Amino acid sequence: MTFSLSAESSTAPGRVLLVGAGPGAPDLITLRGVQALQHAQVVLYDDLANAALLEHCPAPAERIYVGKRLGSHSATQDHICDLLIEKARTGRRVVRLKGGDPMIFGRVGEELAALTEAGIPWEIVPGVTAASAAGAMAGIPLTQRGVSSTMVFVTGHPCGGQTTTPVDWRALAGLQATLCVYMGTQRFGEIADELMAGGRRRDTAVAVISNATLSSQHVRIGTLADGDELTNDPQRRPALILIGEVVRWSEMLKAAELAGAACEV
Amino acid sequence: MTFSLSAESSTAPGRVLLVGAGPGAPDLITLRGVQALQHAQVVLYDDLANAALLEHCPAPAERIYVGKRLGSHSATQDHICDLLIEKARTGRRVVRLKGGDPMIFGRVGEELAALTEAGIPWEIVPGVTAASAAGAMAGIPLTQRGVSSTMVFVTGHPCGGQTTTPVDWRALAGLQATLCVYMGTQRFGEIADELMAGGRRRDTAVAVISNATLSSQHVRIGTLADGDELTNDPQRRPALILIGEVVRWSEMLKAAELAGAACEV
Repeated sequence: MTFSLSAESSTAPGRVLLVGAGPGAPDLITLRGVQALQHAQVVLYDDLANAALLEHCPAPAERIYVGKRLGSHSATQDHICDLLIEKARTGRRVVRLKGGDPMIFGRVGEELAALTEAGIPWEIVPGVTAASAAGAMAGIPLTQRGVSSTMVFVTGHPCGGQTTTPVDWRALAGLQATLCVYMGTQRFGEIADELMAGGRRRDTAVAVISNATLSSQHVRIGTLADGDELTNDPQRRPALILIGEVVRWSEMLKAAELAGAACEV
Repeated sequence: MTFSLSAESSTAPGRVLLVGAGPGAPDLITLRGVQALQHAQVVLYDDLANAALLEHCPAPAERIYVGKRLGSHSATQDHICDLLIEKARTGRRVVRLKGGDPMIFGRVGEELAALTEAGIPWEIVPGVTAASAAGAMAGIPLTQRGVSSTMVFVTGHPCGGQTTTPVDWRALAGLQATLCVYMGTQRFGEIADELMAGGRRRDTAVAVISNATLSSQHVRIGTLADGDELTNDPQRRPALILIGEVVRWSEMLKAAELAGAACEV
């Protein structure tokens, strides 16, 4: 089966646009994302999207915060789906603004399923995901010829009521791949142990990039052997963890590049 | 070691900005990318970035095509590095416009290394990568709770003079992961064989999305058992291959969603 989709429907009413807000800095959203906000009549946003982006919306647009303050994670997701449907059914142009890229750990699937079941047309505007931004800001290519031609994007955060992720870290350890771990700071020691048990060297390079692209951005470089110490952050800032030889390769560049930048050991 | 980088230097002269052009449609570049083009004095671009983006550049900006017509792939890369250094040394603001995201199969590493060695300051503006766009356009979430919490981004294109990639497809087959294969259409049959030999079921769902986000976009759905037939495209359009249960999950959505869209079997 093959099919083609039209991309010319962004501003039609009674429709939901799921828009990737990008990794943090408000100028890292796409032009299409900005256009969606400029035509929005209702916007649902949460903590992961930069609130400064709401300034693109027309003054009368209804702005609805659907962040974690509303309650538990799963309850919030159902609530968001219901709101999206309810608002679209009034014939308005609804934007669901999501941090990063909706397709990557953005829980877009639940929202697509709910909208489709309710007969509400939807469209997705992709965004820059955290791993791309973290790599760009720290000067770490996620792929590099002769070093890594494979990347793994994986969540370190357990699903729903589970206490462990369904991720087979030991199997991932065996790949010659750059690992990009989303939401993994709280369990990094455990993840590092599993990777080492699976054969990854203790001195495998690791970069922890928090608040990438914001003025509060921070990059910490270490190794798997550093375990939880590497991700210990009293401020619990969102962070992306990059694991693999590309990190070390970049560190060599940084020695030259960062002569003038603030460095802490 | 920790360090922070300033993001406020985009318009300084004698500097190279490596800018992700996004997946194809000219409105899927970031605002920061547009701003970089608006301040560019020299732009190096190739076939992977949409040429319409050059309209953002000031009229006097020097536009240099560095696509494949110039010669072999490796010669071109050296030539691009030399040009970037030469142009930046004249004190101008140079933009290197790259398709997708520079950090993902964008060969940014070679350019960073050359610039660093030459003492030229650089900065990277991340972009939307092909997998995000392909997923968004075909309505396929790359991650989905209970289905896939891991994604693998991998190139199906052999490096340099090699005839095979260094990718261990059989090891990848064993992961419960969505596979996003870049540049894999010419060897898809071989890749599918390896995945099946590694234990992936013959009926594993596959989506081949070519020219994602452009009006010529095409989505083809099949299974691993279809092999090269699935990627057979006389026009040899660039395509992204998504492999895994998320594809099938989305197909069910599509049945409802695509009632009005053009379908071909």
